[in-house]
Amino acid sequence: MTNTEQQNQMANAIRFLAIDAIEKANSGHPGLPMGAADIATVLYTKFLAHDPKNPHWPNRDRFVLSAGHGSMLLYALLYLSGYEDISLEDLKNFRQIGSKLAGHPEYGHVAGIETTTGPLGQGLANAVGMALGERLHNARFGDLINHYTYALVGDGCLMEGIAQEAISLAGHLKLNKLIVLWDDNNISIDGEISLADSTDQVARFKASGWNTLKVDGHDQAAIATALEVARNSDKPTLIACKTTIGFGAPNKAGTNKVHGAPLGTREIAVTRFALGWEAEPFVIPPDVLDNWRLAGLNAAKKRQKWKEKFADLSVSDRLEFERLMRGDLVGGFDGAIDAYKQKLVEECPVVATRKASEMALEVINEVVFETIGGSADLTGSNNTKSSQMKSISAKDFSGRYLHYGIREHAMGAVMNGLALYGGFIPYGGTFLCFSDYMRPAMRLSSLMGLRVIYVLTHDSIGLGEDGPTHQPVEHLASLRALPNHLVFRPADAVETVECWQLALKARKTPSTLALSRQNLPLLRQEYEEENLCMLGAYELLTASDDAKVTLFASGSELQIAVKAHAVLEEKGIPTRVVSVPCFELFAQQSLSYQRALIGDAPIKIAIEAAIRQGWDRFIGCNGVFIGMEGFGASGTIDALYAHFGITCENVVATVEKELGKINKEDNVK
Amino acid sequence: MTNTEQQNQMANAIRFLAIDAIEKANSGHPGLPMGAADIATVLYTKFLAHDPKNPHWPNRDRFVLSAGHGSMLLYALLYLSGYEDISLEDLKNFRQIGSKLAGHPEYGHVAGIETTTGPLGQGLANAVGMALGERLHNARFGDLINHYTYALVGDGCLMEGIAQEAISLAGHLKLNKLIVLWDDNNISIDGEISLADSTDQVARFKASGWNTLKVDGHDQAAIATALEVARNSDKPTLIACKTTIGFGAPNKAGTNKVHGAPLGTREIAVTRFALGWEAEPFVIPPDVLDNWRLAGLNAAKKRQKWKEKFADLSVSDRLEFERLMRGDLVGGFDGAIDAYKQKLVEECPVVATRKASEMALEVINEVVFETIGGSADLTGSNNTKSSQMKSISAKDFSGRYLHYGIREHAMGAVMNGLALYGGFIPYGGTFLCFSDYMRPAMRLSSLMGLRVIYVLTHDSIGLGEDGPTHQPVEHLASLRALPNHLVFRPADAVETVECWQLALKARKTPSTLALSRQNLPLLRQEYEEENLCMLGAYELLTASDDAKVTLFASGSELQIAVKAHAVLEEKGIPTRVVSVPCFELFAQQSLSYQRALIGDAPIKIAIEAAIRQGWDRFIGCNGVFIGMEGFGASGTIDALYAHFGITCENVVATVEKELGKINKEDNVK
Repeated sequence: MTNTEQQNQMANAIRFLAIDAIEKANSGHPGLPMGAADIATVLYTKFLAHDPKNPHWPNRDRFVLSAGHGSMLLYALLYLSGYEDISLEDLKNFRQIGSKLAGHPEYGHVAGIETTTGPLGQGLANAVGMALGERLHNARFGDLINHYTYALVGDGCLMEGIAQEAISLAGHLKLNKLIVLWDDNNISIDGEISLADSTDQVARFKASGWNTLKVDGHDQAAIATALEVARNSDKPTLIACKTTIGFGAPNKAGTNKVHGAPLGTREIAVTRFALGWEAEPFVIPPDVLDNWRLAGLNAAKKRQKWKEKFADLSVSDRLEFERLMRGDLVGGFDGAIDAYKQKLVEECPVVATRKASEMALEVINEVVFETIGGSADLTGSNNTKSSQMKSISAKDFSGRYLHYGIREHAMGAVMNGLALYGGFIPYGGTFLCFSDYMRPAMRLSSLMGLRVIYVLTHDSIGLGEDGPTHQPVEHLASLRALPNHLVFRPADAVETVECWQLALKARKTPSTLALSRQNLPLLRQEYEEENLCMLGAYELLTASDDAKVTLFASGSELQIAVKAHAVLEEKGIPTRVVSVPCFELFAQQSLSYQRALIGDAPIKIAIEAAIRQGWDRFIGCNGVFIGMEGFGASGTIDALYAHFGITCENVVATVEKELGKINKEDNVK
Repeated sequence: MTNTEQQNQMANAIRFLAIDAIEKANSGHPGLPMGAADIATVLYTKFLAHDPKNPHWPNRDRFVLSAGHGSMLLYALLYLSGYEDISLEDLKNFRQIGSKLAGHPEYGHVAGIETTTGPLGQGLANAVGMALGERLHNARFGDLINHYTYALVGDGCLMEGIAQEAISLAGHLKLNKLIVLWDDNNISIDGEISLADSTDQVARFKASGWNTLKVDGHDQAAIATALEVARNSDKPTLIACKTTIGFGAPNKAGTNKVHGAPLGTREIAVTRFALGWEAEPFVIPPDVLDNWRLAGLNAAKKRQKWKEKFADLSVSDRLEFERLMRGDLVGGFDGAIDAYKQKLVEECPVVATRKASEMALEVINEVVFETIGGSADLTGSNNTKSSQMKSISAKDFSGRYLHYGIREHAMGAVMNGLALYGGFIPYGGTFLCFSDYMRPAMRLSSLMGLRVIYVLTHDSIGLGEDGPTHQPVEHLASLRALPNHLVFRPADAVETVECWQLALKARKTPSTLALSRQNLPLLRQEYEEENLCMLGAYELLTASDDAKVTLFASGSELQIAVKAHAVLEEKGIPTRVVSVPCFELFAQQSLSYQRALIGDAPIKIAIEAAIRQGWDRFIGCNGVFIGMEGFGASGTIDALYAHFGITCENVVATVEKELGKINKEDNVK
């Protein structure tokens, strides 16, 4: 067998594992694995530095299958290369419940899956984050970290808006160790690409400062040459690989019929014949498998050299690097937070929680070096840049702050990439309202369980004159709806730092910090060592007697509850105030704590400048909600709160009305 | 005064209205109105076909201020041109509560505001929708509709991913009457653009098939020449207008300081001097105002000619055109729906609701010609293309179906543009999970009150093997959180057509149709003339006696409730079943209807393959919810429903457990 034939058979091994697994599952996407098998074979056997036996090796090249529907390509590559997480049994169990091999690649299921993909365009932006991570670690640890990041993208990835955000950011930062392989097959689900697009993709990448190459995606030698050129570029590189979707299937190749459905037994039979593949389903001829495993062993050799390099580091550098990659916080973290909390209660600042967040970041960023801050062009408004943070640029990766540009979606996905890379805790800011722009990335933070922190300021009508286009009303509810996502809405500077502490400690959960634009008084004026926000909700003010009223509130509305408490107590109405900084953490408390905290005051009122959805768990269906019912308006803060009735006066009047009802009922009885 | 001086003063009129209004409001964005005043002056006084006295004239040129933070530019233009909706008093009341002139331009507040802008990039995509609408009406009504669409965009608009989606779609469709003016001022909020971007925007537009021009944005003659060239292009045109942000302010122009804050009295004074503007705040010198008003009158002349053309139409064409622009449905609409419903109960089809939606569309699209269907490259999966619909292409705008490509976000915003344009009812499909990608556009549909219909299929774990990346669990709750948005989740083919009927009749409210991938039995087997879904929720099955149990369910889970009903009644447990196709319509019913429908069965259970959030309004906080608590999984449909316990068996077991609890409590008493 010639070398070329051997390489072709190695690619066919991918094709038939994909064909067979998809046929057995009776579900899946054969088109991409068949079309991109040659590209993937060259990459994995000749270029990718990885060690199938040590898949978490920090200096491995990263490979992201952005076109996640082609999951069988990745699963086949990992199996063939010798990753121990995947057995033939697993491949036979593709897409079945309990299987490690889900319909789309899922981070954490199997080593070698660098990120969860499927929602198009996300993987490309994750890869930008990883390539950035590589440069940042390189700036800090030198050549200990020095590798490539590859992404395989389809037409779908490139049409999504997030791709443009990611591409332009990567070009701007000159991430020259990022190499994107475009599976240019001219087909999407609806049919030929020409139905919906006429973009000159190569010209478009060039416009964003990329190096670009074009190659026949079935010519393995040409692919190898292109990769060699790409690796020596001073810019990120796009390699446009012209391929045939479903390569090898005589009747379906080159059409949308092969994209997302099993080939069927007849087409599989003729494909076997056409590609000269005689093996039974799920059988890889021993010589082909040997060649693949050998490639896997070869690829791992770089790790041996790296281990020597690592051993040469000073002990403290080694320990620091290992701590970072484990994701542990430094020992002094809690102490720094506590000291700052003490200072806060002494100084009693009246500040917006966005400003309080900046103050907290001054403390945090001084001890937690792995934070990478940023904002989607709202640095001064989101208060995300602390004094220690230097901006990252193409010329200097020793900074810790990224100007993401007006690219919320890429920001979310790049932060996911940084968190996946390891050794970073990314946080990024925009207005809460514009979390909508990056919601698909936020969902993936949650699904993957990544410690990514979203700093979302201007969190209500309290932002004032910018009006309803900028005023979130449904966003708190809609983010609270997201599984595995902590939505914090702190009420003052003390709660703000406590929420930051919790977000940084939530190693497998992303967080949102919803922060006010407007100034807020310090309500937690006593120093408490315990992080009360950890409970999700806690009693801030007690009632003077058996409570008639409990007021629940979050964020900027807690001060209204506190004011109302004073007025109501003055009127002889025993009233409690419960601060609710985080629904999700409250739901994790014991049922007895939850019940006791909610209590049995006959009148329960929740106050939040947002919609009611979700608050019933505190106030019950018969409780009163004081907040928003629709979109906001343009006006000064005070005028808006008065207009929408989110005021101390309205709380008091509502309590009196409810008391009147109760008294009337008592009289009737 | 020379002509040039005159034109400069006209531009200065815009600048000072903006400066003065922002100063008085002590809030706003002077940078853009000052920088783009020359561009806007040329456009409004020399090119724009519009009639300030008849602002809704259908063949007017459309102008979209995509960079909505520059709202004072638009307000000034409308006031100066003679739009009667805006008085000087209004300008003095800018950004105050109750004012027509919100912080960002809001559709419906004032005639002449073609769309609500502020969330960046949206306006550009809306303009693509409008330019498409123009071509579609032109294909149908000939030169009765034949005009330009202009959009003014900033760097922020262009960095957002949605811009790329919109640009590539416009280029593909060769929308040559679309002209985009880029306020190329090199500044964003964080500072110089070079902090975050290095894109060659002109090359990028070229790559998407645009005509491109560059011009000095303060040279009015050059701007006019460029516009003239652009109007004769066979492609959409980008005019890159090099401007100085805050033009005229001696100390702040050209910096980010002038972007989003009032200039301040000192800077205003020196700006007045620098620009030779001697008038008091809010005073426009009579000759300048006269010139503006004259331009407004001149611009309206085209409408006179158009009226003659309109009068030449046949009576039926005239009536049809007027009906379309009013947004009325044709007379035969309800009759067609009723006839189809009768047929359905006769044929009793077992189909997925996505298929039922296609069947309904076959009926609807036959009588409602103003629907414009489409999908983000999931036509066959979303079942959005009925047999009447021909694809729209650059060569042929007589079709009614658009292949949006893998561009959910642009799809939403282009549909908004079509709805704003008038005469269209756009609907577009993707998977429910990927509604996240277009959420900012969906929010604007709601905020503007547009009849845009989102066809969101694959609405739960019921999509099966594609797994959690594709399985919505939080999306129903998060869309229900959106004000002024109807979320329909029909349970069978009859409910599906009823929901379509309601969506089409909701003239000021967008709708989501959440539809199943999997087949569902027909549960509404009796013909009812009344549209029961109109109630939001209704009793599908009664209890044989005083109900012990009420089962609430939506969509694909209603069949589980129906099965459980049979089992429970068989066991002698009186059980009701309530179908809940639409929370929002239910909330609009009388309180007595709501209370009666919810009823007082001691056991209330809701079943929905999604999270609980929002269901408490039906089952109370102590009710039982059978659904999802976290993300889904990859597997067959049956395996998934069994795995997550969303089954008839679990409903029955839950009822028995709850009954046990109640009996125990009764015994204790």
